[in-house]
This record gives sequence, C-alpha cells and structure tokens, in this order.
Amino acid sequence: MSLEAVLARIDADLENSTNRLLELLRIRSISTDPAYKSECDAAADWLVKDLQSLGVDAQKRPTPGHPMVVGHVDGDGPHVLFYGHYDVQPVDPLNLWDRDPFDPALEDTKNGKVIRGRGASDDKGQLMTFVEACRSWKAEHGSLPCKITFFFEGEEESGSPSLVPFMQENADELRSDIVLICDTGLFQSKTPAIVTMLRGLLGEEIIITGPNKDLHSGMYGGVARNPIRVLTRVLASLHDDTGRITVPDFYDGVHELDPDMAAQWNALNFDHGTFLGDVGLGLPAGEVGRTPLEMIWSQPTCEINGINGGYTGDGFKTVLPSLASAKVSFRLVGDQDPLKIRENFRAMVRGMIPSDCQVAFKPHGASRASVMATDAAEFEAARGALSDEFPDAAAFVGCGGSIPIAGHFQNITGVNPMLIGFAKDDDQIHSPNEKYDLDSFHKGMRSWARILDAVARK
Amino acid sequence: MSLEAVLARIDADLENSTNRLLELLRIRSISTDPAYKSECDAAADWLVKDLQSLGVDAQKRPTPGHPMVVGHVDGDGPHVLFYGHYDVQPVDPLNLWDRDPFDPALEDTKNGKVIRGRGASDDKGQLMTFVEACRSWKAEHGSLPCKITFFFEGEEESGSPSLVPFMQENADELRSDIVLICDTGLFQSKTPAIVTMLRGLLGEEIIITGPNKDLHSGMYGGVARNPIRVLTRVLASLHDDTGRITVPDFYDGVHELDPDMAAQWNALNFDHGTFLGDVGLGLPAGEVGRTPLEMIWSQPTCEINGINGGYTGDGFKTVLPSLASAKVSFRLVGDQDPLKIRENFRAMVRGMIPSDCQVAFKPHGASRASVMATDAAEFEAARGALSDEFPDAAAFVGCGGSIPIAGHFQNITGVNPMLIGFAKDDDQIHSPNEKYDLDSFHKGMRSWARILDAVARK
Repeated sequence: MSLEAVLARIDADLENSTNRLLELLRIRSISTDPAYKSECDAAADWLVKDLQSLGVDAQKRPTPGHPMVVGHVDGDGPHVLFYGHYDVQPVDPLNLWDRDPFDPALEDTKNGKVIRGRGASDDKGQLMTFVEACRSWKAEHGSLPCKITFFFEGEEESGSPSLVPFMQENADELRSDIVLICDTGLFQSKTPAIVTMLRGLLGEEIIITGPNKDLHSGMYGGVARNPIRVLTRVLASLHDDTGRITVPDFYDGVHELDPDMAAQWNALNFDHGTFLGDVGLGLPAGEVGRTPLEMIWSQPTCEINGINGGYTGDGFKTVLPSLASAKVSFRLVGDQDPLKIRENFRAMVRGMIPSDCQVAFKPHGASRASVMATDAAEFEAARGALSDEFPDAAAFVGCGGSIPIAGHFQNITGVNPMLIGFAKDDDQIHSPNEKYDLDSFHKGMRSWARILDAVARK
Repeated sequence: MSLEAVLARIDADLENSTNRLLELLRIRSISTDPAYKSECDAAADWLVKDLQSLGVDAQKRPTPGHPMVVGHVDGDGPHVLFYGHYDVQPVDPLNLWDRDPFDPALEDTKNGKVIRGRGASDDKGQLMTFVEACRSWKAEHGSLPCKITFFFEGEEESGSPSLVPFMQENADELRSDIVLICDTGLFQSKTPAIVTMLRGLLGEEIIITGPNKDLHSGMYGGVARNPIRVLTRVLASLHDDTGRITVPDFYDGVHELDPDMAAQWNALNFDHGTFLGDVGLGLPAGEVGRTPLEMIWSQPTCEINGINGGYTGDGFKTVLPSLASAKVSFRLVGDQDPLKIRENFRAMVRGMIPSDCQVAFKPHGASRASVMATDAAEFEAARGALSDEFPDAAAFVGCGGSIPIAGHFQNITGVNPMLIGFAKDDDQIHSPNEKYDLDSFHKGMRSWARILDAVARK
C-alpha cells in the first residue's frame, strides 16, 4: 500500500474535505447550553452518517447527556482508537465576532488561508483531520491499514459528565493497542509535538470566618481579628523565598526531568522572553533555577486564582469583615497524590488559624498528572511520521494544563494515549473569531496518514 | 441661681420635651440623598424657630450643601459653643424596621422606655438634650448661665463637605472659650464619659498589575507572576509576629499612655471577654502586651478593609488574574503624621513589587488623631458634673473611631472640645430600628444643666 498515493489524494481532495468541515461547523453543537441539545444530536448524527460512508460500523450511543459516537472498522494492523469531540464552546460575546460563528468560511489572512468559525480548531477541525485521512486511505486502497475505533464525545466543553461512566461500561469495546487524541497543538508552526506529560489539578477554596458579623474598624480595629489578615498570612506562606511550595510533603512524587527529555526541551530553544513579553511580563516567577519550560510542563504550581473579602466597591469603608475567602489551585506532576496534598494543605492552613476563627474548605476537583511511557514503539513511530511531514523534527512536550481524557484511557483501558494536534497558539479557541489554519487542517490530514502508515508497519 | 430648680423643671417637662423631639424626628433629613434636600431645609427651619423661642438670635446659614444653623445668646459666664447635627442616615433596608423610621414613638422595652426612630440617637436626640436643658434653665431663671453659641450641621452623615470652609469663613463668630460636642456615648449605662482621644485615619488603596490580561493557569501557571500572590506577600508583611506594624517609622509620634490615664482606664474594668465574645471572638488580636482598651483607644492600627482579585464567583476558574487590589486603613494616634506614613507605606510596598509588575495607589483620606489637653479647668468641671448625675464617676476615655469635627475646632478656633454624649452601644445608629433610651434623653438634659452650672462657676 502506497502512502504517497494517499498523500496525493489528500492534496487533491482539499477543497472537498474543507467543504465537509464547513458543513459540520454549521451545526451549533454548544454542549453547555440546553437550548442547543438538538444541535448536539444533529452533530452526532452527521458524524455517524459520515463514518458510515467510509464503511465504518458507526452508531450514536446514548448517555444521560449528549450522545457519544462510536464506530468500528476492521483492518490488518494494530487496533487504533481515535478520540475527538464534536461539541463546541458558547459564542458569547457575539458582538466581538467578525462573522456569524456558525456561518464558517475560508478566509485569506496575512498568514495564509484560515477556516473561521466556532469549533474550527476546537475540536471539529482537528477531529476531521483524522476522518479525512481515513477517507483518502480507504478511497485509495479500499480498506484501512489498521483496525480502527472512532470515539467522539459531545460534552468535552461542559465537563464531560458522562465520559468516565461510559468508558467504564464499555471498557472492553474501547480497549485498543494505541490511543490517538487530537485536541492539542503544534509546538510551533514548523514543529509538531506529541504531548507526553499533562499536569494534574487540585482545586481548593478556603473560607475564613473571624467575627460573627462585619465590624467597624473604629470600634474594633486593633483588638478584633481580621480574617483578611489571617488569610493573607496563610496565602503568603504557601511559597518560600525561592518559590518552592511549602505544603508538607508536597514534592513527594515530583521527579527530576529525565536527562534525554531535558536535552530535547533545551533543543526547542523556547523563547521565554517573548512568551512572557507578550503578556506584559519579564521575569520568570517560578522556583529559582528552573527553566520556563520546566516550570510550565514538569514542575508543580500553587496559584491563588481568586481572593475576596470586605468592601471591594468604589470608595472606602472601614469595615473589619466577618469573612475572607480564596480559591487556590495546584498543578500536579509525576506521581503527586492530589488527595494526600489536599489533606496536608488543609492541615497546614488549619494550623495557621487562630483558635477563635474558623476555616472551611470547599473541594474543586482533584486529578493526577498523566505521564506517558514514551518507550512504546508507537511513540517513536508517530514522532518519525510527524517529523517527515513538518520542516522540523517532532518533539515530545509537556502540557501545563490538564486534559482529563488522557488519564481516563490510562486508568480504564490501560493505554498511554498519544496526544497529537495541529492547533496554533493564535487559534482563539474559546474566544471570538476562532479559526483553524487551512495549513493545520491539510498537514493534519497528511500527518495522520503518515502515522497510520507508520504504526501499521511497526 | 438654683441648679436644683432647673433639674426639677427638666423632670416635670419630660413629656413635653419628648414630644418636641418626636416632632423633629418626623422630618426626613437624610443628607446624603438629594431627594431629601427640602426635608433637610425643613429640619434647619424647625431648629431656627425652636432656638428663637428661647430668645436665641438664630439663623439658617447657607452653604453649597445643606444649611448650617447658628444661634447666639448672651450670658454672664464663659462663652460656650455647642455642636450637634440635624441630618440623619438613610433608612435602608426599610423592611428590617419594625415601624416607619420617620413615624417615631415612645416604646416600652425590657430595658425601659425608648424613643424609636431614625435620628433618635444620632444625632437629633442628643442635640435636643442640650437645647432642652437651655429651655428649662431659661424658663426657670429668665436667662442662661453662659454666653452660648449653637452650631448645628446638616451634612455630618454625608462627609461634611461644607463644614471646614464654613468654619474657616466664620472663625471669629465661632470662637469660644469652651466647645461641647454631643455625638458620642456613655462608657456604660452607669458610667458617663468625656472623649479626650480620637484616632486619626489614613486610607490607601493598592492596585497591583501583573500580566496585561487574565491568563490560564495551565498555560502560564508557575512561570507568570500572579499579582494576588504579590499582594498577599505585601499585606502579610505589614505586621510582625508580635502584631507590631512594620511600616518604617510608623510609631514616630505614638506616645506611651500617661500613667494617670492608664490607671483610670484600668479602673474601668473593661470586660474585653464580653466585648469580643459578643462578636464571636475570643482572643485580643493586637500587639502583644497591650490591653484591649489601649488597642482600641491609644494604639494605632493597620487593617485590611477589602481585598479583591481573580475569579470570586461560584465554582472555580483556573485564572491568573491581571490585577489584584486591597483597601488598607491605618488608625492613627498621638502625633503620627498621616502624610509621612502614606509616603513610607507606599515606599515599602513599592520595594516589594517585582520589576515586571506595577503598583498604583489611591488615597482615601488622611486625618491626624485628636488628643485633648484635659488639664483645662472645664474638663474637671464637666467630669464632676457628670459624676453627680450618674451612679458611677465619669471617665476620660478614648475613641477608636475618627470624629473629624473635634480636630476642626482644635485647628480653626484653637479650642480642645469636650465630647460628651449619652448614646448606648445598642442604639442601632446607622441601622434599622435606631432608638435612644428615654433615660439617655432625660439624664442627658440633666447633665447639660449640671455642666453649664459647673462651667459658669469655674
């Protein structure tokens, strides 16, 4: 079977594949808003029909929320599962869009042609790169090079409430040799990436109560405990002067970066000056002695995401408030245990609360980091395939954020997924004027053809 | 001239004097709300007419805001100026009142009869104690024991914008030997008080900017500076571990309490357990080694009155905010210089801001403490007069709050005012269901008769 012929067909079919994507983008599948329930259903139907046109045994599968789409097609090679999501983010504020977000179009820009519309990049465009690669392969060769399971979700943008139960109930059906997830980006335009480390996340809300009502600072100032003062002392103590996090045993399970990976990351020549400069900053703020990529990809964090207490309107009120609160989150790496960290964090905070104040905690999620074992043959195969398609060699990279689906595959079907995507930093995902470069779409399709070819041969 | 006869007349006239107060309380003189402008005017007219009925040469005096009422009456003794204010606080939330706030009435309660209505205590009831004492004196003796100037303001509850200009323009007219201000309270039901120390106030707002927009903590967490973290470190550093304030030179001008005053305060047996227990607290929070009364009356404070940054709604957002802000106030004592403290505070904060963040400050008022020289004869005379009226001896006390009028007299007419009032802690001033104990009103009138008698004889 010739890869070159498939690539040539992908090139020749670009106008048609783009038009099919535009058709999918016209469906208003906003998962978080119940008003769009039937549109989510319509997007699932569209995908079922499209997969069936490739000879895939595809079905819409009900959940308590929006349906999953699952399809199977036989082949000779290894069993590959591909995951993407067909739901999209809301489009507010609508007035900041330059066109109707659900009337997508190909636009010329100074950086080339882009597909403009909600979901173009996140994740319909990315999802279709794989479907289109399969379509060209099938058209060229009459069959696919691997046994493939397609698995599309419709609730990714609204917290995936049905995902884990569905995966657990259908674990046998979803078990595969290789998992491909297309919901990430390129490292840079010329440098494709496979995400092999994802940080976990622990969210905690702290509410400190001092006096049983707001007090006047003239009457009580000096003698009555101010919960904002207690809170600022707690929060200021979460890092030491070198930027290390002080929660007891916090660094248990944080591993030093493997020297090969460190060398590879250094070779990326990440421009942290521009990275920070673009958002108006100049000094890396993390632990002393760490590179910026380490700080984002392989080191844990503790961040204060919100704080509130007392009078915050215009002008001034000399109030001693009854309450002060903060939202704190930890990004976790390696084998850090979120539940143990939660316990140690709460004990540390409790130890700093004066005996006549109270502290309450609200949990907001706790997920471990995902670290892929990159020594499996498919990782090298995929890296090689991507490197063939792009000017620069593909990199194994980390991701500062949390993509829970990766951990679910590790936990439920026991496979280290490969996160490969073609989005760019300026795609405006979740924002007005979302776009996907035509180049991302085109090279994405070609990349999947190469990857399927490579893993089939391995 | 017999004091006893005046006191007997005050007792006999209590029903009439109460009815006159109820008449004044029916006027809706809310100074902060422009909708009540004509009612403020009506309250001033009512007072002018009432003073004229006592033979006082009284006039409504225009200002850019609500009018002042100034009245003069001759007499043989020292020249006494009496200050009070006829404006009242807004009444919201109206649904928490048990009656129409402007349909006042005498009510029986388990603690005796009270006059219920907006302004009953703050300050119409207090103001009228003095007017009624004068009325009884005049009725009994045909003249007053002192030369008296009445000075009533109508903007005290809305920041007194016209007060200082009016006092400066009319300084000669308002100059007197003695100034009496009736806008404070008893130390306890049985213990009257003369306030001789008032704390000053310095308000500052800090706004720290880090990144030029809100960032995602997955993408930037660890490497980008979080302004909330910067802010909490600044705020947590404002006190050392013993509760002392760390702003450089902050304690310049803070004097140790005079041993006589300290002994007197100790003799008051202030129940700080109940004081704190009533608001749900148990441990004095100020500087180690200070008594609670010292903390409230004669020690400076630094309080965080409000803090805000990042996401503070329900749920969680892993945002690194661009901005974080706090409102900080200092209560000042002795000879502390608010402008020097502002300068040192800002320099200290600036010194803690990383070079790629910005800090801005908004000033919110700066007033010195007022400390009265209590060795003038009238202070002892008034203390003796009050001690004769109440079960316990009168005390020279401090006040944790700031009453700017006291400093204005010191600065503009050069007199240390005597702040004497009869309000109680449970009067609900500024709150729904404000009241003034009939006992406060009655003993207040009798106290002023005694004080006028005492200062006339001195």
